[in-house]
Amino acid sequence: MSANLRLRTLTNHLKSTLKMKLLYPTSLHINTKSLEGFSVDLHPYDVTAPIPDSLIDAEFLVTWGNKATNLRDAAARMKNLRWIQSLAAGPNDVLSAGFDASRIAITTGSGLHDETVAEHTLGMLLNAARRFYEMRDYQTRGEWPGHLGGLQPDRAPGTFRTLKGANITIWGFGNIAKTLAPVLTALGANVTGVARSAGVRNGYEVVAEDRLSEILPKTDALVMILPGSESTKGALSAERLQQLPKHAWVVNVGRGTSVDEDALVEALENGRIGGAALDVFSVEPLPKESKLYAAPNLVLSPHAAGGRPREPEALIAYNLRRLLAGQELKNII
Amino acid sequence: MSANLRLRTLTNHLKSTLKMKLLYPTSLHINTKSLEGFSVDLHPYDVTAPIPDSLIDAEFLVTWGNKATNLRDAAARMKNLRWIQSLAAGPNDVLSAGFDASRIAITTGSGLHDETVAEHTLGMLLNAARRFYEMRDYQTRGEWPGHLGGLQPDRAPGTFRTLKGANITIWGFGNIAKTLAPVLTALGANVTGVARSAGVRNGYEVVAEDRLSEILPKTDALVMILPGSESTKGALSAERLQQLPKHAWVVNVGRGTSVDEDALVEALENGRIGGAALDVFSVEPLPKESKLYAAPNLVLSPHAAGGRPREPEALIAYNLRRLLAGQELKNII
Repeated sequence: MSANLRLRTLTNHLKSTLKMKLLYPTSLHINTKSLEGFSVDLHPYDVTAPIPDSLIDAEFLVTWGNKATNLRDAAARMKNLRWIQSLAAGPNDVLSAGFDASRIAITTGSGLHDETVAEHTLGMLLNAARRFYEMRDYQTRGEWPGHLGGLQPDRAPGTFRTLKGANITIWGFGNIAKTLAPVLTALGANVTGVARSAGVRNGYEVVAEDRLSEILPKTDALVMILPGSESTKGALSAERLQQLPKHAWVVNVGRGTSVDEDALVEALENGRIGGAALDVFSVEPLPKESKLYAAPNLVLSPHAAGGRPREPEALIAYNLRRLLAGQELKNII
Repeated sequence: MSANLRLRTLTNHLKSTLKMKLLYPTSLHINTKSLEGFSVDLHPYDVTAPIPDSLIDAEFLVTWGNKATNLRDAAARMKNLRWIQSLAAGPNDVLSAGFDASRIAITTGSGLHDETVAEHTLGMLLNAARRFYEMRDYQTRGEWPGHLGGLQPDRAPGTFRTLKGANITIWGFGNIAKTLAPVLTALGANVTGVARSAGVRNGYEVVAEDRLSEILPKTDALVMILPGSESTKGALSAERLQQLPKHAWVVNVGRGTSVDEDALVEALENGRIGGAALDVFSVEPLPKESKLYAAPNLVLSPHAAGGRPREPEALIAYNLRRLLAGQELKNII
């Protein structure tokens, strides 16, 4: 073996030894082709089991739907970890696992769920307005829901039967709202945002929460996209439900805890609002004994709006490149 | 009484005598304010009864949901009739009543239903993709449809779970399709039109019907908006159903006769297509004994997409002005 060849072999050996490891989850399909070309070794891992010893020295970890036990174990044993890229919209599961945030950069999958959640929300709004859920009940009984078809009044006052001309209030005006609002506008709705601070975002008027009692009485459909936190707990209270018109719908795709579910059941049973379409609940799966199942004009969706990160490879590759280049990461918490 | 005053009185009398009459239906809310200012007397009439003798000399008739007996009687007795403005998308009911089309201008309500039908169709597509009908069945049984929520694959091949990236074929590419297509595009779908003649319409590729066997196998959702006629009868035949992929959905908001319902039931029962959302049926109301009620993945809507002419006053006023000015009418047949 020549000296040159020996040197090259050694360099290659060192290189491969020194190559950092990125662990990607098998809980979703990752097109690893999009992550090639970096001087990083890519390894799949199972989010339901402890990280294998052979991978425990990895520097980078991508998470999606990891079991709490998996994350706690990883937090305790992955001493070389420098970066966690979660594909979830929020970092809650990673943060509660005990990773050392002073040493590890944590980035979220914020933005990967905007389109899916916006589309599902639009579907819930149209389900409510066009009353597909009620049609289904008739169909199940082998009956023709004639009262919902044929000649109908268009945009009769005090009804929510179309998005055209409807006042839609979006409470929680982040990226999902910014994706949803233009589609609602295209369908003729008037969109108003509500958030902690007022302003104009992406061309939409966003008012502060202290103006809710002025906005709610003019609302035909209230879309809630609030994050889960102590401050949003019970945000849609009995009092605020009472400020909605009798025909108004509530759509919740944020967190179940932001709605007072007992007050909602009461409002539905007494016909004090038009209906509610919920994708999230304070306890999931919704317990058998919950009154929500049978509440009138309640549309139940099993936390199905998100759960499908869209093109995660682009975000992982973007942040991996920035990290290797020593640049600021996207969605860093 | 001076000669001048007498003359003026006579002129006014003649004017009011000569004022032409426009009859508008009470079957929907017409804002007559928008029709004022013309030298025409406006009279409401009941579409379920014969036209009263006092109005039988009217020159103009607006129709909406008229009983066949009302129209036949009007055709026989309204000798001064010069113009019929139907608010329906098509003129079938007016034409079959026996009005003398050589003497009477007939204009349709084409365009008044584009937005309502497009919105309802979008709702049906999202109901199919997001499986709200299946969620409803679980809710009715007090069960959590967990398999439809939580972590899910995004855009798995051979599924129709989102409009993003979905190939949507619209068969019958008129005004409704032109209203619907941009919203589908905004949600990420790839829209192809099918019509009798090929071309590019409103920026969308429309292929001729002889290319259906090439388009259908690549279709995730087929939206049918064909008019009712002999030539469209059974257009979606057993053979064409077989050309669709196993996961494809059929949405029909045109006419029920354009789908071979027996072949559709068979395809649904054998899982040869993903599902069907129908707003129209060959017989309406759908008879109790129809197998469609209980067919798997069949979403039934009771001819509810249209039936709500949007801003009819604008069309009536436009055509009334054109008629009085001797100009060409809009939507003339």
